[in-house]
Amino acid sequence: MTETEAFSPLRYEAGVLFVLDQTRLPHEEVWLECRGVEQVCEAIRRLSVRGAPAIGVAAAFGLALALRGVEDEAAQRRVFEKASARLAATRPTAVNLRWALERGEEVFEEALATGHDGLAERLEDWAETLRRRDIETNRRIGEHGARLFARDERGGRVLTHCNTGSLATAGHGTALGVIASSFDRGDVETVWVDETRPLLQGARLTTWELDRLAIPYQLVTDSSAGLLLSRGAVDRIVVGADRIAANGDTANKIGTYTLAVLAARHEVPFYVAAPTSTIDETTATGAEIPIEERGADEVTDVFGVSVAPREAPATNYAFDVTPAELIDAIITEVGVLEPPYEESIERALRAGR
Amino acid sequence: MTETEAFSPLRYEAGVLFVLDQTRLPHEEVWLECRGVEQVCEAIRRLSVRGAPAIGVAAAFGLALALRGVEDEAAQRRVFEKASARLAATRPTAVNLRWALERGEEVFEEALATGHDGLAERLEDWAETLRRRDIETNRRIGEHGARLFARDERGGRVLTHCNTGSLATAGHGTALGVIASSFDRGDVETVWVDETRPLLQGARLTTWELDRLAIPYQLVTDSSAGLLLSRGAVDRIVVGADRIAANGDTANKIGTYTLAVLAARHEVPFYVAAPTSTIDETTATGAEIPIEERGADEVTDVFGVSVAPREAPATNYAFDVTPAELIDAIITEVGVLEPPYEESIERALRAGR
Repeated sequence: MTETEAFSPLRYEAGVLFVLDQTRLPHEEVWLECRGVEQVCEAIRRLSVRGAPAIGVAAAFGLALALRGVEDEAAQRRVFEKASARLAATRPTAVNLRWALERGEEVFEEALATGHDGLAERLEDWAETLRRRDIETNRRIGEHGARLFARDERGGRVLTHCNTGSLATAGHGTALGVIASSFDRGDVETVWVDETRPLLQGARLTTWELDRLAIPYQLVTDSSAGLLLSRGAVDRIVVGADRIAANGDTANKIGTYTLAVLAARHEVPFYVAAPTSTIDETTATGAEIPIEERGADEVTDVFGVSVAPREAPATNYAFDVTPAELIDAIITEVGVLEPPYEESIERALRAGR
Repeated sequence: MTETEAFSPLRYEAGVLFVLDQTRLPHEEVWLECRGVEQVCEAIRRLSVRGAPAIGVAAAFGLALALRGVEDEAAQRRVFEKASARLAATRPTAVNLRWALERGEEVFEEALATGHDGLAERLEDWAETLRRRDIETNRRIGEHGARLFARDERGGRVLTHCNTGSLATAGHGTALGVIASSFDRGDVETVWVDETRPLLQGARLTTWELDRLAIPYQLVTDSSAGLLLSRGAVDRIVVGADRIAANGDTANKIGTYTLAVLAARHEVPFYVAAPTSTIDETTATGAEIPIEERGADEVTDVFGVSVAPREAPATNYAFDVTPAELIDAIITEVGVLEPPYEESIERALRAGR
């Protein structure tokens, strides 16, 4: 076990879900103690826990917490349904959240069918299994990615965007997990960290994780990649994904598409790292992926400091779509997928089932 | 005279240079009153006045202020040399500052040769002429650009980067002046304003100018251009320049090169607007242009708010270089230059002399 794999932003102990509050990072490491489902909902809503896989795992523990101390079967059903609905409403677009709640319902029904004693404990066990499985998935993504880095014959300077580390998952991370695994093998020398406006997940969270891992990095503004690439200072780019279409088109944090365009111009490999659960078979191409538009205040205000005229109109798209043609490989837990993605993705999903 | 042309961030009246303090924008409009050269130096150093043309004009008034009330010829020479040296030391890389001081020395020597009476007044007159001439130059850039916009048969949605308006010059601006002139003709519908990290000149200053001009705009993060272009929401891009090499390669605020790469991919015109004084004949290509590297704190702190771990290493290049091949036209006061730039630039410089 490396240092990376040991760290998780979620920890469950005897009726308490400990959540590392990401809104307080990087300056304070505060662990929230969630003792009921409403506290878990609040932690998700206020982005104390963020990143689709991490939210899914937190929601699973939320279901378990809701059922603690509820003995009567009718009450159990009522409590479960209410808890599931509340969790689902926190962030309606996160795919992993919905998936975890659906999986949780199956576990709940199976458990009830065999007797309603110890129901909360069985949900606790399931949530903990989900948490450990996510870490294992990410560890495998890291291994596949590290082997790819070792064989692509590039230097050791990697650029990444947003936060895709342990904080965005149950542990180890996706794109940042690949970087950590490759660093352990000696193939990563330094990381260019895009600050990732507007919410600065790169500046606040990725730097914090790299500090913990003792991986050298340089923080840069999102506008810097062009100059760095033109100077030959970037050997490869690796990012995460929020949704991958059946043809390989990938939605990810806004700015990702620009990086892919620059990488193509400078003939630098551009990789996506994500679990196969991020692939949405029902989405044929990127054109079908809806792009979330968020509030103007995230652009006009930086953590309480107003940086634009009051009432300045701002457009704040959270994601963009990178066409498959610009992606050199998609690193998953079942292996490295390469073009043509229609075929490699289908094979990967079959292997994952 | 349009509204644009009437506004100048520099105003001189009877021994006082009024400077609009850009560090207080957009929330406060504070005019600094500079009554001596040291106050002008301080205004330049702390970026109360910024933008190469604006700095040059401010320095000219600084020389005039230094000479006020100095009657003795020997003292005049001593005072002039000291003032010039102090102004030159404020921002050693700004080309227009050096040019203005050299021009000021010629005026000083000519004036002394014809008698040392009224010397300060003659420098005042010269500085005011310089100020008016800069506005006139920008007005011409605006007219040439507006005609280009009218004939390129594109829609009315323009994207721009950093601040290139009245605030960066003695008035009207360069790229933002083109937008204003074209808006007056009805050919600009709305402006996408890049916030321009790290110092947020787009968010703070360009928005403020567009509000004054009543030109519709949307503020966006620097990462948004890729998505906007891929959605067909940008009809053309126009930016300013800090230095243009003899072959047309252009140094400008970091992020400009990325915009040019994206514009080429989406077949959207990419224009540079600048006076011919920004062209440096002694620089053959962009490879020879030195790129200023500024402090890490501009990235790690946003106006007093720390957004990264303490002591986080950050790399902060202020400019990048856009190769001439990605620039569709360079809009100057003597006309619109088109490729091949070696030839059109040489013709323009001959015309300008």
